[in-house]
Amino acid sequence: MKNYIKVNEWNIIEEGFDPHRNKISESIFSLGNGRMGQRANFEEAYSGETLPGNYVAGVYYPDKTRVGWWKNGYPEYFAKVLNAANWIGIDVKIDGETLDLHTAKVSDFRRVLNMREGYLQRSFTAELPSGKQVKVMAKRFCSIVDDEAGAICYRITPLNFSGNFTITPYIDGDIKNQDANYDEKFWDEVTKEVNSSSAFLTLRTKKTAFEVCTGMQFVVYHNGQPVELKPEPIQNDKYVACQFNVAALQHEEITIFKFAANLSSENYPKDKLLQHCQEVIQKIFKKGFDQMLQEQAQAWIAKWEESDIVIEGDAAAQQAIRFNIFQLNQTYTGEDARLNIGPKGFTGEKYGGTTYWDTEAYCVPFYLATADSQVTRNLLIYRYKHLQKAIENAEKLGFTNGAALYPMVTINGEECHNEWEITFEEIHRNAAIAFAIYNYVRYTGDAAYLNEYGLEVLIGIARFWAQRVNWSEAKQQYVMLGVTGPNEYENNVNNNWYTSTMALWCLEYTLSALALVRNNNIGDYEAVVEKTNFLTIDEPLNWQHILQNMYLPVDEEKGIFLQQEGYLDKENILVKDLKPADRPLNQKWSWDRILRSPFIKQADVLQGLYFLEDRFDLETIRRNFDFYEPRTVHESSLSPCVHAILAAKLGDEERAYQFYLRTSRLDLDDYNNDTEDGCHITSMAGTWMSVVEGFGGMRVRHNQLHFNPFLPTKWHSFSFKIGFRGVLLNIKVSKGGVQLVNQSDKNISVVVYDKVYEIKAKTQILAEHEYVA
Amino acid sequence: MKNYIKVNEWNIIEEGFDPHRNKISESIFSLGNGRMGQRANFEEAYSGETLPGNYVAGVYYPDKTRVGWWKNGYPEYFAKVLNAANWIGIDVKIDGETLDLHTAKVSDFRRVLNMREGYLQRSFTAELPSGKQVKVMAKRFCSIVDDEAGAICYRITPLNFSGNFTITPYIDGDIKNQDANYDEKFWDEVTKEVNSSSAFLTLRTKKTAFEVCTGMQFVVYHNGQPVELKPEPIQNDKYVACQFNVAALQHEEITIFKFAANLSSENYPKDKLLQHCQEVIQKIFKKGFDQMLQEQAQAWIAKWEESDIVIEGDAAAQQAIRFNIFQLNQTYTGEDARLNIGPKGFTGEKYGGTTYWDTEAYCVPFYLATADSQVTRNLLIYRYKHLQKAIENAEKLGFTNGAALYPMVTINGEECHNEWEITFEEIHRNAAIAFAIYNYVRYTGDAAYLNEYGLEVLIGIARFWAQRVNWSEAKQQYVMLGVTGPNEYENNVNNNWYTSTMALWCLEYTLSALALVRNNNIGDYEAVVEKTNFLTIDEPLNWQHILQNMYLPVDEEKGIFLQQEGYLDKENILVKDLKPADRPLNQKWSWDRILRSPFIKQADVLQGLYFLEDRFDLETIRRNFDFYEPRTVHESSLSPCVHAILAAKLGDEERAYQFYLRTSRLDLDDYNNDTEDGCHITSMAGTWMSVVEGFGGMRVRHNQLHFNPFLPTKWHSFSFKIGFRGVLLNIKVSKGGVQLVNQSDKNISVVVYDKVYEIKAKTQILAEHEYVA
Repeated sequence: MKNYIKVNEWNIIEEGFDPHRNKISESIFSLGNGRMGQRANFEEAYSGETLPGNYVAGVYYPDKTRVGWWKNGYPEYFAKVLNAANWIGIDVKIDGETLDLHTAKVSDFRRVLNMREGYLQRSFTAELPSGKQVKVMAKRFCSIVDDEAGAICYRITPLNFSGNFTITPYIDGDIKNQDANYDEKFWDEVTKEVNSSSAFLTLRTKKTAFEVCTGMQFVVYHNGQPVELKPEPIQNDKYVACQFNVAALQHEEITIFKFAANLSSENYPKDKLLQHCQEVIQKIFKKGFDQMLQEQAQAWIAKWEESDIVIEGDAAAQQAIRFNIFQLNQTYTGEDARLNIGPKGFTGEKYGGTTYWDTEAYCVPFYLATADSQVTRNLLIYRYKHLQKAIENAEKLGFTNGAALYPMVTINGEECHNEWEITFEEIHRNAAIAFAIYNYVRYTGDAAYLNEYGLEVLIGIARFWAQRVNWSEAKQQYVMLGVTGPNEYENNVNNNWYTSTMALWCLEYTLSALALVRNNNIGDYEAVVEKTNFLTIDEPLNWQHILQNMYLPVDEEKGIFLQQEGYLDKENILVKDLKPADRPLNQKWSWDRILRSPFIKQADVLQGLYFLEDRFDLETIRRNFDFYEPRTVHESSLSPCVHAILAAKLGDEERAYQFYLRTSRLDLDDYNNDTEDGCHITSMAGTWMSVVEGFGGMRVRHNQLHFNPFLPTKWHSFSFKIGFRGVLLNIKVSKGGVQLVNQSDKNISVVVYDKVYEIKAKTQILAEHEYVA
Repeated sequence: MKNYIKVNEWNIIEEGFDPHRNKISESIFSLGNGRMGQRANFEEAYSGETLPGNYVAGVYYPDKTRVGWWKNGYPEYFAKVLNAANWIGIDVKIDGETLDLHTAKVSDFRRVLNMREGYLQRSFTAELPSGKQVKVMAKRFCSIVDDEAGAICYRITPLNFSGNFTITPYIDGDIKNQDANYDEKFWDEVTKEVNSSSAFLTLRTKKTAFEVCTGMQFVVYHNGQPVELKPEPIQNDKYVACQFNVAALQHEEITIFKFAANLSSENYPKDKLLQHCQEVIQKIFKKGFDQMLQEQAQAWIAKWEESDIVIEGDAAAQQAIRFNIFQLNQTYTGEDARLNIGPKGFTGEKYGGTTYWDTEAYCVPFYLATADSQVTRNLLIYRYKHLQKAIENAEKLGFTNGAALYPMVTINGEECHNEWEITFEEIHRNAAIAFAIYNYVRYTGDAAYLNEYGLEVLIGIARFWAQRVNWSEAKQQYVMLGVTGPNEYENNVNNNWYTSTMALWCLEYTLSALALVRNNNIGDYEAVVEKTNFLTIDEPLNWQHILQNMYLPVDEEKGIFLQQEGYLDKENILVKDLKPADRPLNQKWSWDRILRSPFIKQADVLQGLYFLEDRFDLETIRRNFDFYEPRTVHESSLSPCVHAILAAKLGDEERAYQFYLRTSRLDLDDYNNDTEDGCHITSMAGTWMSVVEGFGGMRVRHNQLHFNPFLPTKWHSFSFKIGFRGVLLNIKVSKGGVQLVNQSDKNISVVVYDKVYEIKAKTQILAEHEYVA
C-alpha cells in the first residue's frame, strides 16, 4: 500500500517525482472519454520504467492463446484492446541534450488530475546533466465533447540559460502491448503523411484489419506570440513527426499546443479515414485549446450534476468516491452499443480491455442511477448484438436448439478467455446477463425492452440452463455438475448453490417475461416465438419441471445454503486463523492448496442473497453471512461491496463501513500493489454501490425508490444523486436526518425507512432517522 | 487407421513410397540404443514432410511454460528432450542435381526394420527430374554395443547414365524442436572442426548448458575398392561437412560408410568431450561397419533370448508384439539410473521425452520379467535420486516435514507439466512410485533395496498422503479433496476411490516396510529414521488413525466402489449409446462436456483393482468391471491392457483378446492417426502385460510365480520368456497344455492353475489346461 496521493476533494495530486511509483501514477492519472483513453505517460522522452498506453475503444487484436495443452473447445485467442499509436509525444532537446526525467534532476514535480473539469496538469523543474534548468508545465485532456480528440498544452522555460530548443511533436505507431503472448507487434503501417505542422499516420491491426488514423497538428508560441516555423518533416517506419528549432533566452517561455485525434475504421469507411481525421483535426485546431478545455469543463460539470457524491467530514473518502465516479464516466459514456467496460477501462492492458460479468453485476447499477437510461440500455444491447455468437459458443460446447452461453470474456461476442475452468465452467455469468435485463426493467420501467430485445436473450439463456442440468438417478433431482461459481477459489464443483439458484431464477424470469410480452403485445410475442423457434408448450413445461425438481445444496442443521455440495467436508478453519504471512493466498499458496481450502475469494452464496434479497428473510441472510464472511478472503476487488451492502442490510453499520474502506481508495493508495497495471474500473462501481445501496440503503421495489440510510460515524454527512424515471434526486444523509431534494419538474413518491414520502417537483423533504444518532 | 506395413514375423516392412505416410514411418522405423535415438529420417536431402529427430538421452531444454493465466506454484518450464544435431545426413548431388525423394520419381522403395538384429535398411530407385536413375541402398543402426555410436552404409549406383556424384556427409546442428513453445532454437555452437574425412561439432543447450559433441568419420568405396579422396571441408554456423566428387560409370556402385557418435557432457567433462568423441569415432571406424553390425546382431539376439514372445498362427500379432518388445528394449537399457522412459521414447518430441507414472505402472512389469533386475532397480533409483526434489515440490504446495510429491512429468526431478489439474491434483502418481518399489521387491525378493533406498522414498510418500487428507467434520472421517484420478476426463474431484485407496495402501506398505527394515537391520532402520527425522511413534499412530478412519466412496446397492463422490449423479448413459460421430470424445466434445459426462478415459477404479487384486474377491472385481468398463472410452493407450488383464482374470477370454487387439498394433497400423508424432512406447509395455499377465495369467505371490493361462482362439500357441530370480523360463501355451521350460541352472517351483510344479534346472514340464479347449 502506498500513500503518496495528496488528499483534495476535487483533485488527485502527486507532489515530488519518484520513478518507482511512475507506473502507478500513470494508471491513476489516466484520461479517457469513452472512445479513447490515455495513461499518464509523459509527453517528452522518458527512459525510466513506464507502461505506455493509448487505447482506442473497440480496436482489438486476437492474440493467439497461450496454453500448455490444447483441449477441444478452447478459445483460439485472447482478444486484447490494443496499445495504439502514441499521440502525446513531444520530444525536447536543449542544445542537443534530451529532456528526460529519468536522467534529469527533477524538482517541484506536481501532477494534478482535475476531476471536476476533466484534465491532467503536470509541472516540474528539470536540471539536465549539463546543469541547464528548465521549467515545464503540461496540461492535457481527452475531450468528451470532441470524443475522438485530445489536446495538449506544453510550456517550457529555460531558467538558468539561454539556448536552442529542438522540439519534435510526433506520432509513433511502433508500439507494442507489453502483455503480447508471443512478443509480437500488432500493427502494420497503411499510410502516413507529414505537412509543415501536421502529420497523419494510419495503422492497420494484424489479423483483424482494423484501421486507426492518428492525426496531429500543432502551433508554437514564444513568450505568448505565435512563431512562424518551417519544421522539418520526419518519416520513419510507423512514425511521423515535425521537428523545429526555437532559440529562447533565459525565462522566455515556449508553448506548444498539440491537437490530436484517433479515428477508427469502426466508425468510418477505411478509404475515408484519413480525410475524416484531417477534418477533425482542422475542427479542433480551429476551436483552439482554451475553448476545447472550456467545453470539456462544462461537460464534466454537467456529468457531476447527475452523478456526484458529496461526503462531508472525510476529505480522503470524498476524493476517493469522486475518483471512482470520474473513472467510470471516463470509461463508458453509453453512446455506442458496440463498446463496453473492461475491468481496467483505458488505464492498462490487463484483462485485455474486454467485457466480463463485472459490467452486468457491478456497473449496471451505477449507470442506471447516474446516467440516462439509454446508457444502460446500450450495455444491454451490446449483449443482444452478441446473442448469435453466444448461441454459437454454446453449440461449440455441445448445446443445441438456440441455447446461448455468453462468454466469460469477450470483445466481439466470441469467448476469448483461455482457462477451461473459467471459460467452460464459470457459467453463472449467463445469469448476470439476464439479471441485468431484470434490473434495467425494474429500475427504468422500460418493459418494452423485453419485447424488442430482452426476451430473445432470456430465451437463449433459459435454454442453456435447461440443457445444462441433468437428471440424477441417485438424487432423483436435477443437478448441475462441473461449474465454477463466482468464488474462483473453487473449480469444477457440483451443484454450486449460487449458479443453480440463479439458473432457476433465469427460468422463472424468462417465463414471466414471456407472459409479460405476450400480454403487452401479442404480435411482439409471436415474432419472438417464431424467430427463436420457441416451443410454447414443451419448453415452459420442461422449465417448470426443472424449477420443481432442482437440487440445491443446504445444511439444515446450520440453516445455510451450501456453496457447493461437499463444502462442509473442507477443513473447518477461518480467515482469522490464517497467519499474515499466508496472505494474500493467491500470492502465497499454491493453486491446489487454495482450491482445497475452505477460503472464498469473493461473494458466492452471498452474491445470490444480494441479487435475490427479497426472497430471503433477514435471519437466513444473517446465518449465511455469519457463516461465509469469516471464510472469505476478499481477494477480488468485487467482493467487499456485496458484503458492505449485506452488512448494512443486517444493521451492522460498522462492518459495512469497514468493507467499504477496503475498496474505497484501492487504486489511489495502491492497496494491492497492482495499480501500475491499471485501475480497477469495474470495482469502482462496487464502491459506489457500497455507498448508495449500502449506506444509502437504496432499492427499487414495485416501481418505487426505497432508502434505508445510515451515516457512517466518521462522516458529518453524505449525499448522492440519483436519476430515476425522469426525476433527479439529491439524497443527503446527515445527523439531522435524510434530506431528499427533487431537482426535477416531476413529482415523485419515495419510501424512506418504510415510510412513503411525496416529493413534489423542485421541492425537498426531510425524513428523520429511525435510529438515535 | 493405416494398414500399409507388411506382415512379417521378424521385420517391419514398408513397400512403395507414399510421402503422406512418411512421418508415420519415420516413427515406426525409429532406432535407439538407450543413449540415443533416431527417427527414420532419410540420409539424403528430403524437401517433403518430415519430423527430423535425433535425441540424446538426458539432454533437455527447460522450455518456458505456455500458460494463459499464471497461478502460484505452476512449473516454470516444460522440459523437453532435445532434437540434437543431425548425424545421419549425406547429401547427394548428381551432375549438380540434388537427390531428393520429394522431387524424384521413386520406385522399388522398400524399408525394413530388422528387429532380430537391430538395423534399418532402405532401398529404392529414384529417377531425378533430369531422367537420371539411381539405385540406393541405405543400412544403419544405433549400436547397443557401442552405445554412443551409430553407423551407416549408403550405396548408390547410376542405372542409366555415367556421371559425377557430389557427396556431402555432414553434421547439422541448426535444428529445432517442432514443439518449441516460443519457436526458439535451443542450441548454441561451442566448437567445430573438419578434417579430411572426419568432422566434429560441439553444441551447448541454452539455459541448461549441456554440451553434446557429435562426430563423424567416413570412408568411400567405388565398386568395392576404397577411394582416395581429398574432400573439401565445409564449415557453416552449427554445421560441419566434407564434400567430395566421384565420377561413376553406369552400374558402378559408390558406397559411403559413415560412422558417428553423440557424446554428452552428462558423461564426460566438457573440456574432454571432443577428445572422447574423437576416441569413440576412431574406435568404431577401426572396427568397421560389418563388425559393428555383427556385434549389434549378436547383442540383439541375446536380448531376444530373454524377452521374446512367440505367437503361432497369427503373424500380424507376432510382428506386433516383437515390435513392442524391440521398441522397449531400444528405449531403455537400464544401464544409467539418470535415464528413464518417455511416453514416446526416442521416436518423437511429444510429451517432451520426460518421465510419467507410465514407467512405474506399465513399464516396470515388463523390465522385471524380461531383463536383469538391475534394469528395474535403476528405474527405482531414478526416483530415489529425485527424492529431495519431490520434497521441495511438495513444499511449494504447502506440505512440510519431508512430505514428498513426485512430479507428474519430470526429467530432472522437478515438476514440469503445466496444467494445474494434472500437476497439482493427479497425485496418484505418488502411489504408483511406491507400488513399483513393492512390485520390485515382490518380484525380485531384493528386500535390501528397502534398507538402502526404498524406505526413504516410502516415508516421503506416506508423509505426503498423511498431510494431503483432511478431517471432515461433516463426515467424521478423513477425506481427500481436489484430486484428479487416472481417469483424466475428471478434474478436481473429491474422494477419488483409486487415489484414496492407493494412499491408504502406501501408508500400510510404508508401515510394513518400516517393520521389515527394522527387523532385517536395526542399524539401517535407525539410519533412515535419523536421516528422515522420522517420528517413530507419532507418525505411525497418525497413519493408523487415517487407515482406520478414511472415507472411501462406495455404492452399497450396486456393490461398487465409486470412482469419486457424486459419480452417480452423472447422466446414466453408456459408451454404446454414443454415436460414432462423437468418438473419440477428446476430438469431438468440448472439454467441459467430457468432464460432466460419465465417460471414463482409462481404468480408474479398475486400475486399483488391478494393482491390489488380491484384496478383492472375484465378484467385487466383476461388479466393478461390469459397471465401469461400459462407461470407459479407452482414449488412453494405457487403458485396454488393464481391462484385458481383468477380463482374463474374470474368465472372459474373448473380451480380454479384444482389449489386447486395441493396442497390439496401435502404432504399426496408426490406429489413432498420431503415430507421426512418435510411437506409444510406454503403452507397448501394456500390450506385453496383456499377453503375459492377461493371457498368461502370470502373477507373483509369496515369492512364487503363478500362471493361469488361456490360449486366444485365433492363435495356435504363444510362448513368452520370463526371468525370475536367476531362472529363465520359457512358457508356451498351446492347445496341448502349458509347457514350462527352465532354461537355467537353477530349480524353480511354480504354480500353474493353482497347482504347484517343481521344474528342475534345464528341464521342462507340461501342465494341462484346466478348461476344455
